[in-house]
Amino acid sequence: MTEARNGTDYDVIVIGAGPVGQSVAERTRAAGLTVAVVERELVGGECSYWGCVPSKALLRPVLAIADARRIDGARDAVTGAVSAQGVFGRRDRYVSDWDDSGQADWVRGIGADLVRGHGRLAGPRRVAVTTPVGDVVGLEARRAVAVCIGSRAALPDLPGIDEAAPWTNREGTQSAAVPQRLVVVGGGGVAVELATAWRGLGAAVTMLVRGPAVLPRMEPFVGEFVVQGLRDSGVDVRLGLSVTGLQRPRPDGPVTLRLADGTELQADEVLFATGREPATGDIGAESIGLTPGTWFETDDTLLVRGVDGEWLYAAGDANHRALLTHQGKYQARVAAAAIVARAAGEPMDTAPWSPFVATADTLAVPQAFFTDPEAGSVGLTAQAAAERGLRTRVVDVEIGQVVTGAKLYADGYRGRARMVVDDRGCLLGVSMVGPGIAELLHAATVAVAGQVPVDRLWHAVPCFPTVSELWLRLLEAYRDAPV
Amino acid sequence: MTEARNGTDYDVIVIGAGPVGQSVAERTRAAGLTVAVVERELVGGECSYWGCVPSKALLRPVLAIADARRIDGARDAVTGAVSAQGVFGRRDRYVSDWDDSGQADWVRGIGADLVRGHGRLAGPRRVAVTTPVGDVVGLEARRAVAVCIGSRAALPDLPGIDEAAPWTNREGTQSAAVPQRLVVVGGGGVAVELATAWRGLGAAVTMLVRGPAVLPRMEPFVGEFVVQGLRDSGVDVRLGLSVTGLQRPRPDGPVTLRLADGTELQADEVLFATGREPATGDIGAESIGLTPGTWFETDDTLLVRGVDGEWLYAAGDANHRALLTHQGKYQARVAAAAIVARAAGEPMDTAPWSPFVATADTLAVPQAFFTDPEAGSVGLTAQAAAERGLRTRVVDVEIGQVVTGAKLYADGYRGRARMVVDDRGCLLGVSMVGPGIAELLHAATVAVAGQVPVDRLWHAVPCFPTVSELWLRLLEAYRDAPV
Repeated sequence: MTEARNGTDYDVIVIGAGPVGQSVAERTRAAGLTVAVVERELVGGECSYWGCVPSKALLRPVLAIADARRIDGARDAVTGAVSAQGVFGRRDRYVSDWDDSGQADWVRGIGADLVRGHGRLAGPRRVAVTTPVGDVVGLEARRAVAVCIGSRAALPDLPGIDEAAPWTNREGTQSAAVPQRLVVVGGGGVAVELATAWRGLGAAVTMLVRGPAVLPRMEPFVGEFVVQGLRDSGVDVRLGLSVTGLQRPRPDGPVTLRLADGTELQADEVLFATGREPATGDIGAESIGLTPGTWFETDDTLLVRGVDGEWLYAAGDANHRALLTHQGKYQARVAAAAIVARAAGEPMDTAPWSPFVATADTLAVPQAFFTDPEAGSVGLTAQAAAERGLRTRVVDVEIGQVVTGAKLYADGYRGRARMVVDDRGCLLGVSMVGPGIAELLHAATVAVAGQVPVDRLWHAVPCFPTVSELWLRLLEAYRDAPV
Repeated sequence: MTEARNGTDYDVIVIGAGPVGQSVAERTRAAGLTVAVVERELVGGECSYWGCVPSKALLRPVLAIADARRIDGARDAVTGAVSAQGVFGRRDRYVSDWDDSGQADWVRGIGADLVRGHGRLAGPRRVAVTTPVGDVVGLEARRAVAVCIGSRAALPDLPGIDEAAPWTNREGTQSAAVPQRLVVVGGGGVAVELATAWRGLGAAVTMLVRGPAVLPRMEPFVGEFVVQGLRDSGVDVRLGLSVTGLQRPRPDGPVTLRLADGTELQADEVLFATGREPATGDIGAESIGLTPGTWFETDDTLLVRGVDGEWLYAAGDANHRALLTHQGKYQARVAAAAIVARAAGEPMDTAPWSPFVATADTLAVPQAFFTDPEAGSVGLTAQAAAERGLRTRVVDVEIGQVVTGAKLYADGYRGRARMVVDDRGCLLGVSMVGPGIAELLHAATVAVAGQVPVDRLWHAVPCFPTVSELWLRLLEAYRDAPV
């Protein structure tokens, strides 16, 4: 169908070339549709250059050394410090020095046209791209436009915040210098991960968390373990404390934060990890009757609600279903399947768990944080299940106390796992916190998304002596818990 | 029912107080049956004192340091060597200095009688225990006898092997000194793990493997990666080379091995990890018509075949179904459920995956080896599936090349995963090799034992950027592979 790619008509126009947009492009191209991908910044998006990739590049050395230090005999080998320069070098390599030519080549390699510039919706099925030199190129989509533009760091409206030149996740993953004193404002995933990273690289870190806990959308114990771990590593975690204003009199001087308790705090850098906001403010939403600056709400096939004609999709952060790269890529696969089926006029099974609906967005969203200890969860928390009116049984396991494999993994292992089970004996959710937990989560995701009942999970034998044997302990706790 | 525990009658007699025997005792006691547990050696068994526990206690520090050394920035912190004394200290702690009083207390704590001595079958439902002082105590089982006696290291019949005083898994996990030169004979799990451990603790290690590969029952590539890892760490791995004789002229002197290629090899210790043999030689098998020194073959409820009356069970290594602690514990749970149901005269569902049959023994046995790289597999290999006449599709993923989370986990990550899928789209087996893989295996075990079809696994989203995203790559490879 390459002959159809003349001029400005495409079957599919994807706005945003991050992992989500790339996935939509790749799957629709693989089905033979013609595709244009519009990107105003770096091909690869926030995740590749200022998100998960550089943050884990920074975190992994810190966590590997923390792991080794927990083990008698190994501890003796760790006599030096993590090298910040070495870590920055690996980070720079994993973000390709913020050069997107490799990813741009990949987009072209799948047979999509890469259009660099700021894409804006310009009426139904139309996208106007303002190129870097200021030209405007009009594109028309025969089948679909997919909005995969991610989200932006949300900054609170505080006196002095502009002159304070705060870090967001961007500077917090991109910096090539370790600030002597870093204040992290926020208590979500970005906040706890970057506090962990910069503390591990040598900064004196203070966390200011407005609410009473970190990671407030996970089971409460998860945040408690993470706070304890941060404090053990030397982070000064202050819960229930807001920033009321900032002052940075000299751009190269320290920043002073005024706090809600009347005190002040001085730092060399301040990182705001205070949530994300829609990136839809300037993408022509108004041209099709949507409100700029709002999340684009979708149905389970990722079609944007409120737009007629089954042509506008939103996948990834833009739809606010789950602000996670992997979940956005999942949505991208679903959206692409729906686009392809609708283009071909094929019937679409929209029952739960079909290839055309993002059922997992509702029932089985996994998330992992590379903190020390690591944290992970999938599906519903006990509270979320209760809010949905579901009858559940909830069992906890103190991993470090009852799992031999965990003790062997780390002397003095501290961690907890929780399983939330519905009245049919299926898992609604699993949460875990502890060293090395991030890679254990997928077993829970398979169990939750696969709706594998507890009766069958007894036959899924965890190896002795792995940390994964926490599963046996969870099943035993469930068996022995009062109904 | 404690009043029933007078004298020498019990509902259930368990021979062997390792993890398997303990599990049978615990589950049958929990159902209210009276239980005696007979142990001639340490309560806790081979696994607790000379198997998985001490070997992983030795291995984990070695692997944690190897992990850290693979990561730029972390490598700089690892300026010393693993402390063998520190490692021995943790090993001694995890085996409670080979003192079983804690585990003996646990057995008594569940309300079972612990009978120390050598238990022998003495006709139907009868067990004669020769106590440490030489008395013989007769026990009678109203419901069941469970043989949970594990297995023994098999030594080849070689000239000079006795005077050579070779190590088996026992000395290989118990030693408090690092031999300068260690020869490991064998290529199975014990061999590759203990070669890894002792090399990591500073020994010069040579492996002599009779066959052409190590870990011959796993997918061929797994052993290849493990051999490469051993060689990279400095182990001299010699494949296809047998030992023909040994000489140790002085007990405190070196041992000389004669090899099948006509050469000789001198070492300070030689470890034979050349398989396991039945421990049934002296347990009174002949008194009930079984052959001493053979494996006790069972049905899927763990009843020993060839014995009338539904009273004799064998779980764990003794039945040779799967010589793995976790699988033995699984069999113990199944056997206990069957014992309890039969004792109560309750109907037993013996369909696959019921609580009363050890279906996973056939379809979903997981095993993990803590080598560098780690190795894990569950279910059938491609070859095993083919031998069963199953139509399969087999897909491989080069983890280090296509999984971003793996690259971030370890710079230069090397590993591979394989998925064997049947013609219904269900997973028959998964194999993985690579750093950190041991804890990733359980997701595969849930998928295989849960018979979660590939279509549903697409909804089990692995977190980005974890190593677990190898699952996405496996699914993509399966989708894109020619049928």
